Amino acid sequence: MAFNPKTIAVVGASTKPQWMGGTTFIANLQQLGFPGRIYPINPKAEGMEIRGLKAYPSLVSVPEPIDLVIVSTPAAQVPSVLEDCIAANARNIHIFTAGFDETGEEEGKRLGAKIREIAQRGGLRIVGPNCMGLHVPKARISTLEQAATESGPVAFLSQSGGHAGQFVGTAPIHGIHFSKVISFGNALTLDSTDFLEYLATDPETKIITMYLEGVKDGGRLTRLVKEINPQKPVIIWKGGLTESGGRAVASHTGSLGGTEAIWDGFFKQTGAVRVDSLEELTDVTMTFLYLSHPPKGRRVALMGAGGGNSVAGADVCSRAGLEMPTLTEETRKILREFIPPEGTIIRNPLDIGMVLMDITLLERALEPIASDPLIDAIIFALPIGLFGMRPGATAQAQETQPQEDVYQRQITILSKFSKGSPHRKPVVVVLQLWRGGVGGAAGQRARLQAEFIRAGIPAYPSLERASRALAKFIQYHEFQGQLAEGL
Amino acid sequence: MAFNPKTIAVVGASTKPQWMGGTTFIANLQQLGFPGRIYPINPKAEGMEIRGLKAYPSLVSVPEPIDLVIVSTPAAQVPSVLEDCIAANARNIHIFTAGFDETGEEEGKRLGAKIREIAQRGGLRIVGPNCMGLHVPKARISTLEQAATESGPVAFLSQSGGHAGQFVGTAPIHGIHFSKVISFGNALTLDSTDFLEYLATDPETKIITMYLEGVKDGGRLTRLVKEINPQKPVIIWKGGLTESGGRAVASHTGSLGGTEAIWDGFFKQTGAVRVDSLEELTDVTMTFLYLSHPPKGRRVALMGAGGGNSVAGADVCSRAGLEMPTLTEETRKILREFIPPEGTIIRNPLDIGMVLMDITLLERALEPIASDPLIDAIIFALPIGLFGMRPGATAQAQETQPQEDVYQRQITILSKFSKGSPHRKPVVVVLQLWRGGVGGAAGQRARLQAEFIRAGIPAYPSLERASRALAKFIQYHEFQGQLAEGL
Repeated sequence: MAFNPKTIAVVGASTKPQWMGGTTFIANLQQLGFPGRIYPINPKAEGMEIRGLKAYPSLVSVPEPIDLVIVSTPAAQVPSVLEDCIAANARNIHIFTAGFDETGEEEGKRLGAKIREIAQRGGLRIVGPNCMGLHVPKARISTLEQAATESGPVAFLSQSGGHAGQFVGTAPIHGIHFSKVISFGNALTLDSTDFLEYLATDPETKIITMYLEGVKDGGRLTRLVKEINPQKPVIIWKGGLTESGGRAVASHTGSLGGTEAIWDGFFKQTGAVRVDSLEELTDVTMTFLYLSHPPKGRRVALMGAGGGNSVAGADVCSRAGLEMPTLTEETRKILREFIPPEGTIIRNPLDIGMVLMDITLLERALEPIASDPLIDAIIFALPIGLFGMRPGATAQAQETQPQEDVYQRQITILSKFSKGSPHRKPVVVVLQLWRGGVGGAAGQRARLQAEFIRAGIPAYPSLERASRALAKFIQYHEFQGQLAEGL
Repeated sequence: MAFNPKTIAVVGASTKPQWMGGTTFIANLQQLGFPGRIYPINPKAEGMEIRGLKAYPSLVSVPEPIDLVIVSTPAAQVPSVLEDCIAANARNIHIFTAGFDETGEEEGKRLGAKIREIAQRGGLRIVGPNCMGLHVPKARISTLEQAATESGPVAFLSQSGGHAGQFVGTAPIHGIHFSKVISFGNALTLDSTDFLEYLATDPETKIITMYLEGVKDGGRLTRLVKEINPQKPVIIWKGGLTESGGRAVASHTGSLGGTEAIWDGFFKQTGAVRVDSLEELTDVTMTFLYLSHPPKGRRVALMGAGGGNSVAGADVCSRAGLEMPTLTEETRKILREFIPPEGTIIRNPLDIGMVLMDITLLERALEPIASDPLIDAIIFALPIGLFGMRPGATAQAQETQPQEDVYQRQITILSKFSKGSPHRKPVVVVLQLWRGGVGGAAGQRARLQAEFIRAGIPAYPSLERASRALAKFIQYHEFQGQLAEGL
């Protein structure tokens, strides 16, 4: 595919505003600042302008070679547009149009077969149909509305245009930015494996994420993922594994989904990281992005606030497959030198709210816990809104410590610790909400989460999400035999 | 217990600010506007004032009967404070102080035994020790900081003070308000069953929620819950069911937690609603509060946007135990009269983003779907940020429809439909984020969630949470044999 086109033709651009389609795509390219030339194609718009650009009646009438064609005509017209592509020698095509095999109807299947035939005959490289195509921030191309312009090392291959839009739209708050996003829908010609092969050697891609509904060549996928996964973690969300999900897959991209057992086998063989939702895809990708050192094992220390929260935390980590050994007697002895016994628990989980909120104590606690030979990774569960941080808090609470400042210093200290500690044990942060209110603690939590991530520490809104993602990160390294036993 | 005290003594109030403890509790009572009289007790503060109140050297020196005593002295002093209670004829006591059986040490256990002995001898009704005691918004009493003043029909019995604070602090955004919250920690004298018995006949309580670590009399709990649950749904979060969780329980409240198998049996016998986290407790409570009619069964229609989202939605609902039958041919025929086939799926899940965002179409779609005999409940998964709603959106998108206004009209229409529909099928809303940004779509989502709930419709930030909560609501009614077969 042309990931860095100089010229783009949009076939099926309308002179009227649309919910979604050719004219929207032109608007989005313009908004993103695409530096090349855009050619709206519409036989009824000859001599007119569409979004300030001269419209052409057909592809062959465009005065220069076209690097990328975006097709958004009705389905019945797509075959003849593809014939035009061949005539215009335009080989890279994204078909947005839906209405093919996924309809389950004769006419759709017939059109799908025809596209395959034309593509083969003309050597066309087609993304789609029934998809959002390419999003490459560096090249300033995207069909997505208000797409982020920042680039990053994550690629996303998605059979759903919606998931592509949603992941691209929400990933930046988690510090995730993209090299290439390819929404490829029905995969009538190019399939996930073709894109995967490209990404394997793409120097701008370090982590590969995928949303799959079906795969044409399972053997090839298995071989490729096995090969790529040790160098570039491959994170896969397979949709439609339940019975109703499988039915939805058929209506969506017309794919054959495969059974749960087949996919279980695939994940066991390849060591690819399995996720089951967009939320988990986001969390796991963030974890791989920001944790640089492989852990020694799955034994975590959980530093949090509240005894009930310790119990809940132990349950949650345990269910996620993490272990939570009691700290060594030596570590507990050191901690007891400055952590009073009243209202604290220092076995593990550690119930030490006052330590987390007191920067001096927090700094003192970090080293002994990180040095504990029974501990491989540390989770900080920081309470947001526990101690009078809202405007109008009791004078008492305000006196004790100005809260916002404490959070800022937590970020500084934990970021320094996470990068500089000789133990190189992974550190993640959970921001636990103790109070509600749309503009209050909830907003502060979202802000702080973004700030922690900017400081290089993966931060999650719940321990469920953090422990699940951390467990997958550890599992990946276990599979690769990369557990840093020797460090 | 005295849930409506006129006088409160706080033993162990300090003249200095504290992180938490007697003086903080006085501050919190004052902030909440407690209308009665508060007596700070501190032998070293005789003749001084604490937070503007005259301090007394001991309970017996207080000039009037004391309805509630809050004890926050060091653990070693608690026995003599209790002797003072007997002398002052003060029978209702909340012991905040920790350091008893939960320490696992001889001294703590000895003190615990002593408290039990004194309580029995003096007929003392003790909440605690090692807890936050009572929170009764209507009586304006609470040890919690900045507690909400609004009352509601939900009671919460919690062995964790932290969970009590967190639930009380975050519940209002979910439209949950409390009749009584009792944080009872180690339960050295009064146990969950004692409070449960009280709540069974409390006219202000309609739903009972609990966080339990251990129970002294399992048989009594089973009998009580069985009896109460059909009238007042009992929602229980049992903490510490994993091995590390069980260890954390021992350090927290010194309870014997019981095994997973025992609790499985308990839930099967009683039909109590089981939840496994504070998040789930919140979601399920909101669902019981706002869904007034029991459903006929577990067959849901899911109306959302995006084909990939349909697949994900089917998987999620299916895993939560909901069924998702294809709509009847008749319903589909009616829908096809005004929903164009391109880019939509109307089998179920319904991929109809454009319908959800077009108020006229949305209104037309509601009735046929609600009338479908195969459907028992409806989930609306509304996309937030899908179509150019952020400031700076493309002119194109802005022209198409002003988004904020669409959401407001969705709230009006769905609320009217949910209350007025003759089918009385439960309706819930999911607000799916399609874009990030702390102040952008995420903030708008939180605002809209609150507005939907205010309009009487349970609203959740993810389908995972909605389907899980809805499934528990249905399961409760299945157990009660209250499925509305006849309606």
